[in-house]
Amino acid sequence: MRLRAAFQGELGAFSQVAARQLAGDDCIPVPMPTFEDAFVSVVNGKCHCAVIPIENTLHGSIHENYDRLLKYDLPIRGETLVRIVHNVIAPPGVKFSQIRRVFSHEVALNQCRRFFDENSQIERTPFYDTAGSVKMLMEEGLTDAGAIASANAAEIYGAKILKKSIEDDRENFTRFFLLRRPGRGARAVVSQTGLETTKRFKTTVVFTIASRPGALFRALSVFALRDINLTKIESRPLRGKPWEYLFYLDFIGHVDAPPCRNALNHLGELADMLRVLGCYPTG
Amino acid sequence: MRLRAAFQGELGAFSQVAARQLAGDDCIPVPMPTFEDAFVSVVNGKCHCAVIPIENTLHGSIHENYDRLLKYDLPIRGETLVRIVHNVIAPPGVKFSQIRRVFSHEVALNQCRRFFDENSQIERTPFYDTAGSVKMLMEEGLTDAGAIASANAAEIYGAKILKKSIEDDRENFTRFFLLRRPGRGARAVVSQTGLETTKRFKTTVVFTIASRPGALFRALSVFALRDINLTKIESRPLRGKPWEYLFYLDFIGHVDAPPCRNALNHLGELADMLRVLGCYPTG
Repeated sequence: MRLRAAFQGELGAFSQVAARQLAGDDCIPVPMPTFEDAFVSVVNGKCHCAVIPIENTLHGSIHENYDRLLKYDLPIRGETLVRIVHNVIAPPGVKFSQIRRVFSHEVALNQCRRFFDENSQIERTPFYDTAGSVKMLMEEGLTDAGAIASANAAEIYGAKILKKSIEDDRENFTRFFLLRRPGRGARAVVSQTGLETTKRFKTTVVFTIASRPGALFRALSVFALRDINLTKIESRPLRGKPWEYLFYLDFIGHVDAPPCRNALNHLGELADMLRVLGCYPTG
Repeated sequence: MRLRAAFQGELGAFSQVAARQLAGDDCIPVPMPTFEDAFVSVVNGKCHCAVIPIENTLHGSIHENYDRLLKYDLPIRGETLVRIVHNVIAPPGVKFSQIRRVFSHEVALNQCRRFFDENSQIERTPFYDTAGSVKMLMEEGLTDAGAIASANAAEIYGAKILKKSIEDDRENFTRFFLLRRPGRGARAVVSQTGLETTKRFKTTVVFTIASRPGALFRALSVFALRDINLTKIESRPLRGKPWEYLFYLDFIGHVDAPPCRNALNHLGELADMLRVLGCYPTG
């Protein structure tokens, strides 16, 4: 079955690259104007899955999507990493020397500062989307303008790459989650719960704990005392309780492996709220 | 001496309310287009201090300002809370029934969803700033438009409040930091290091630790084992080391009080990097 995979952005977005990695090369990419729309399209059954960025190595977490993991309760079924390579792209026939403006998303423009410093004749022009700026250049037939976007976007819209890999920092990766509706067969299954097998999985949970000295320390002890490796902690404000927080944790291990199961039972004793958001093969 | 206090936004912004609380009613508010400009104005001596939002109880942390605390090394000298009260504001003589559009910053518009649901004749119109939207209404003399902003903004620009406190959630507070240049006399001094005195102070630190099982747990143990209360933890990506993090911690206590000093010495043994960003009276 070809999966309908929702993602935020235009065709050619980095999220579409992630969608292929997570939902298969033959998936049907379904562009959505907002992250919210992508989540909702899975909830209401219009798409089989959504592919959502959760953190970037330069920008940090996409916090609004953490909030949506809790709000929509779509289990995380996979993760993948996409290296963000920014290219200067223009319609065929346009030469680099003709370019006076470069369009792209603000975040992408900010990740290519060196390029703009070295090419002061070129004006940086914020646009709503990276791939969308390539689409617009092609539609408008602009001959004095370029866009910063993925190689994938150049290919999709029939544009040309004039400068490859102009990003300031090569260590620019985005981590994406694959979200599906809960259902039979959708859950990752671990055949053995041996250490080697469980290490190939990651589990994401969210919890709240009463605010008192040592509360977070005790919560983390349930993992540390069982040698379970945390790979990420993220705090978000708890609505209605100013200056209290939700904690999102990623740890290495399968939710059904005994040490992880015990750790989560233990955390359940300490936490006011605890939910497993997903268990998935490490990306 | 009247302090020149930099803040992001137009005159009448919530940051200006915070500036008065932190730098005195007689401070000279100096509006800046960006947070970056506000930090730089203190570094280069154009302003005595900057007043910067660091977190909001609905929106979460302002992560880019966490990054700037590390980048600019301006010590935190104070904190304060401002309750965010959103009002519908229009030029004098304009009646509520005339209003067809309401301008404000996207975040403020999103915090007044109920108002827009109940007043479907009114179009929500994103603008670059809350107070700036009041300024613009007055300059343009619009008679079919309102703005969502602080009572302070209405007063400054001579506009009228038509609806008070239209925010969806009353538990809407922003926490601000006062940042000053390092220098003699600027440091908060604790005369006694007794428990009662130290509890009136908060300390903010940033650190990195080598990624291995239990690393964060051990880092937090230095506080838990000394009954020091953490009030906030925030993680940010560590540049150049994908999937490793900087941790920002706030704890209750004065940096010179023995338990806190010992905890920080202990954390220094475990951390690859540790820096005290400030010690200040709790807001």
